[in-house]
Amino acid sequence: MGEHVAIGILGLGTVGSGVVRMVHGHQEELQHKVGCKVVVEKVLVQDLEKERRVSPKQEWLTLDPDDVLSNPNIDVVIEVMGGIGLARKYILQALNNGKHVITANKDLMALHGAELLKTAADNGCDLFYEASVAGGIPIIRALKEGLASDRITKMMGIVNGTTNYILTKMDKQQLSFQDVLKEAQELGFAEADPTSDVEGLDAARKMAILSTLGFSMNIHLDDVDVKGITGVTKEDIDYARQFGYTIKLIGNARKDDGKVEVSVEPTLLPDTHPLSSVHNEYNAVYIYGEAVGETMFFGPGAGELPTATSVVSDLVAVIRNMRLGVNGKNDVAPQYEKQLKPLDEIHGKFYYRLHIKDEAGTFSVLASLFAENGVSLEKLLQNPTSSKGTVEVVIVTHGTTKQRDSLVYSQLLKSDAVYGIESHFRVEGVSA
Amino acid sequence: MGEHVAIGILGLGTVGSGVVRMVHGHQEELQHKVGCKVVVEKVLVQDLEKERRVSPKQEWLTLDPDDVLSNPNIDVVIEVMGGIGLARKYILQALNNGKHVITANKDLMALHGAELLKTAADNGCDLFYEASVAGGIPIIRALKEGLASDRITKMMGIVNGTTNYILTKMDKQQLSFQDVLKEAQELGFAEADPTSDVEGLDAARKMAILSTLGFSMNIHLDDVDVKGITGVTKEDIDYARQFGYTIKLIGNARKDDGKVEVSVEPTLLPDTHPLSSVHNEYNAVYIYGEAVGETMFFGPGAGELPTATSVVSDLVAVIRNMRLGVNGKNDVAPQYEKQLKPLDEIHGKFYYRLHIKDEAGTFSVLASLFAENGVSLEKLLQNPTSSKGTVEVVIVTHGTTKQRDSLVYSQLLKSDAVYGIESHFRVEGVSA
Repeated sequence: MGEHVAIGILGLGTVGSGVVRMVHGHQEELQHKVGCKVVVEKVLVQDLEKERRVSPKQEWLTLDPDDVLSNPNIDVVIEVMGGIGLARKYILQALNNGKHVITANKDLMALHGAELLKTAADNGCDLFYEASVAGGIPIIRALKEGLASDRITKMMGIVNGTTNYILTKMDKQQLSFQDVLKEAQELGFAEADPTSDVEGLDAARKMAILSTLGFSMNIHLDDVDVKGITGVTKEDIDYARQFGYTIKLIGNARKDDGKVEVSVEPTLLPDTHPLSSVHNEYNAVYIYGEAVGETMFFGPGAGELPTATSVVSDLVAVIRNMRLGVNGKNDVAPQYEKQLKPLDEIHGKFYYRLHIKDEAGTFSVLASLFAENGVSLEKLLQNPTSSKGTVEVVIVTHGTTKQRDSLVYSQLLKSDAVYGIESHFRVEGVSA
Repeated sequence: MGEHVAIGILGLGTVGSGVVRMVHGHQEELQHKVGCKVVVEKVLVQDLEKERRVSPKQEWLTLDPDDVLSNPNIDVVIEVMGGIGLARKYILQALNNGKHVITANKDLMALHGAELLKTAADNGCDLFYEASVAGGIPIIRALKEGLASDRITKMMGIVNGTTNYILTKMDKQQLSFQDVLKEAQELGFAEADPTSDVEGLDAARKMAILSTLGFSMNIHLDDVDVKGITGVTKEDIDYARQFGYTIKLIGNARKDDGKVEVSVEPTLLPDTHPLSSVHNEYNAVYIYGEAVGETMFFGPGAGELPTATSVVSDLVAVIRNMRLGVNGKNDVAPQYEKQLKPLDEIHGKFYYRLHIKDEAGTFSVLASLFAENGVSLEKLLQNPTSSKGTVEVVIVTHGTTKQRDSLVYSQLLKSDAVYGIESHFRVEGVSA
């Protein structure tokens, strides 16, 4: 290790620009913290001439990935280009060339994290990814170190800023999903193609990463049960409020008797739950550990500088390890074989909004249907609707299993008494 | 390093018992995380026969500190006995004997942290102290690592569970300070001698530790301006609520232009501030960094197992360092010389509750007094009182400096128009 550490950056978009700004703007503090200068050596871009948020030196920019990945001067590669195929290939190449890697790429870590971490360890390299989950919140570190001695049994996260922004605005301004989405797109809080955010995929990737770490078990993206927020209506938000709940897109991960469940779904949170007051584009992760009890980590989930903070903090850790000669020795492989809960071991309460026939007897048909499946009702509200002959019924069940709830759901779908299941969400019990 | 790591524990009170329970109860996970067994070798106690929360093996217990401090089998010493004189002596002795030390002792770290950390570094030993601030919240780690690349400009903390419990109960149950204190003592949430908690000293020690780390500057306990909660009344809590504020004991640390202010004082927080909803015995630390923006860390501030979680997580870190041979090389000494803000650079808004003469002209005397000192008023409320001829006036000022506010305060004290200054607290502005 010479008198300075040289970094190569893959991508110069929002986060890449933030990294360049922080490495330069905080150079003095960085030098104090790591004991040497940190310099940008090369930046892989797609277009040498593009106007940018930062003014990079022209000699940094390159169109050739090998100028970064095989550059003997470069010690650390920072991957902030996003995507999966190329990013994976480049990271593997960098690691195999003995370079330490820092990535902000949740898609990649959720799909190929185990492979990449193993390659890093095999090459004696660090692979850090704090920025991949909840931007500026140091949650990966909290799980790997701060809570390392505890047994985590529950994690709940608001880990997607776009959907939290949309749900907050729908709630506070009484707007529809479509109206808020349009506004969010205009303001740059939502992408032109919002699918990955609003369908819950982005949050699912983050929950796969968090639950792998928290439960010490390789949880794959496919193990996460996902439902987005496109079905959440103003009406649902209003009914939820009447019942004392706030609707949030919640990543939910629980471990009982060695078996886990991981889901991302719109969830009615009691207004007293710490996550119910996390608004706008903010993220938060609530963790329950057997010893520590309740903890929560709150902060910005995205953005140029918050995400760059996590990337550059990872860089500080990599360089400290370089100085101590201990790179590639910090990661602990998952301790347990993956065991997922079957549906009859997943417990929860559920919310239904139904349109039913406005006829004598309909209500008793409905009540029997729940009762026959062993599901009892905690709250029930009935409202006339604008369509003649139809009544709107809103139900919150008592605690039951996902299996029983699925039976109720499929029977409601088939029932002649029911015109339609307008909404069907999970309800969080009293805060643990 | 042998096939196991042996620890010695100084003290077997609440936290010590928790450490023993976690080291035993989580042995399998610990072994997976650190790669070897962790065994308790010796525990220093004051009484070999006492009934305890855990059942220690009789051969562990000793009355002789040297059985721990000079024991060649012991690698890591965990200091959970509390106090200052003896604890300092023992920790210095352990470090000088080449043993790594983990401490939960905020008093000691606030007063002698710099000396102890230097001794650790000189001996190539780790000295970790996560448990000394905010029990189960990994805040020390967040500052040292997760936010290592950022410039922290503001930290606000609810870092004393006892006072937060008391203020919460006063607020929710409309009780007086004395009544809640008595209840808290009966429930074990407050000590028989509550001085250190209710006078703000305990919180001040924690803020000295946090600001030393966050601002990279040696902040001593004496640098913290401290005011406890004994002067907070039901009336103040009610007026605050009317104005949209919640009163909390807030540790407040800010850095501007390289100069810092650190205080602990009852503070009116806007109800929209993230800290205003932190209730009961919970702790939380709110951090503002130039790049990351707002983050908050929430969790239990004390208790057997939450505090033990932090101690044992530090133990995991020490043992990992032992395996890598890098103990004593992780700490970074403060970067900056201490510079405290003079009073005229400390900005804030202030709350007054006054009893004044019920006479024509009094009000204008009062108004002029504030105006002459350049302090303008944001909110003003006047109420009759039960004592004849007296009016209660409640004021929240606009932003001003502590210097101007001190002038106002001292002139109010002397003014004939004022019978008494019942309360005088700081008011937090709109959340940054």
